[in-house]
Amino acid sequence: MKPSRPDLPAFAIARQGKRAAYDAATIHAILDQALVGHVGFVSEGRPMVIPMAFARDPQAEGGRLYIHGASTTRIVKGFKEGDPVCLTVTLVDGIVAARSAFHHSVNYRSAVVHGSARLVTDADEHAHALTLITEHLLPGRWDEVRPMLAKEEKATGVLALEIEAASAKIRQGPPVDDDEDYALPIWAGVVPVTTALGLPVGDGRTPGEVPPPASILKARQKFA
Amino acid sequence: MKPSRPDLPAFAIARQGKRAAYDAATIHAILDQALVGHVGFVSEGRPMVIPMAFARDPQAEGGRLYIHGASTTRIVKGFKEGDPVCLTVTLVDGIVAARSAFHHSVNYRSAVVHGSARLVTDADEHAHALTLITEHLLPGRWDEVRPMLAKEEKATGVLALEIEAASAKIRQGPPVDDDEDYALPIWAGVVPVTTALGLPVGDGRTPGEVPPPASILKARQKFA
Repeated sequence: MKPSRPDLPAFAIARQGKRAAYDAATIHAILDQALVGHVGFVSEGRPMVIPMAFARDPQAEGGRLYIHGASTTRIVKGFKEGDPVCLTVTLVDGIVAARSAFHHSVNYRSAVVHGSARLVTDADEHAHALTLITEHLLPGRWDEVRPMLAKEEKATGVLALEIEAASAKIRQGPPVDDDEDYALPIWAGVVPVTTALGLPVGDGRTPGEVPPPASILKARQKFA
Repeated sequence: MKPSRPDLPAFAIARQGKRAAYDAATIHAILDQALVGHVGFVSEGRPMVIPMAFARDPQAEGGRLYIHGASTTRIVKGFKEGDPVCLTVTLVDGIVAARSAFHHSVNYRSAVVHGSARLVTDADEHAHALTLITEHLLPGRWDEVRPMLAKEEKATGVLALEIEAASAKIRQGPPVDDDEDYALPIWAGVVPVTTALGLPVGDGRTPGEVPPPASILKARQKFA
């Protein structure tokens, strides 16, 4: 993955020096841990941000994400090849309660990816992308379900987002207060925020006794 | 809150009829439950999406959000009065595992708010906005901390987002599979996703014995 691109606005690279990270491994780990991505695009001059399922392609040279919506959604239907897209994910780790309102903060890991969108039309790439998106949330699920039908493939629009710039920001640890405020009798610290997957709830419509499969366990481990 | 505006692109109103909800109470509840918002704006023709602290003003006629970044961040520094902004929040409630890859889904509640940005310069409104943003995460925290300093107020850029259109989408319940697939011996159901606040961790730098204050308990209840 290229960490930056000169023709992107500078703020796309980093806003807060001390919180910015650029190495691919850090960015990939944040992307892989996110349940959904917030996808931004410009439509008739207006910003649009919608939550979408996505996955990172670990094999793609240079970095690539696949994003997915029913092919009727505007981002797939209305976009033009090469349109700029921004995908942002945020993992919230804690609420940081400081001794002053000013130093309140949030512990988080976020990744912002800029790229250009391309509609995936090649059948093999399309299947590859849908496998990745399915298995981003449920690792190994693709081989547990009935094979995809041609009409389903046709109805599922997939965009490839070729990564042109990506950055991560991470804030962790306790509040950082003004020196003189540490003398105040005010509690300060972090309230941890955790996101986890619970026990699976079957829909009760499968014949016989079929336990939750391996993909469910893997997902619970991945997003623990 | 006005549920729609004719000059907005149609897709801003609703994409998936059966999942769209427009009533203000539904949209407000989703916004109030979100830890961060994903704020989209257009910069030099490119979409930018960044996570930001925000709060809804329950008193504002017509609907208003306040969003907040260090005043050095581009959205505050670089924007022009009235620039279009989109704020989206997504609460993920479950991973929906169906019998076919095609019918996999995510249970979620999301709200998309479109509006125009206005830099808050009035001192009273600025204090009001910072109180709301602080108390969005930690209800009652404002009165527990030492009062804000003039230099801190100056360093904290706040944007008001006057709501021009807002919509919510909610997906819940089990997978919806093709009729013939229910005969297959494939487990299907929902893996619940929960986000919760853990026990607060003090930074150990407050003199004496000061227990976590009421705001922490209220936050744990609010985001449970």
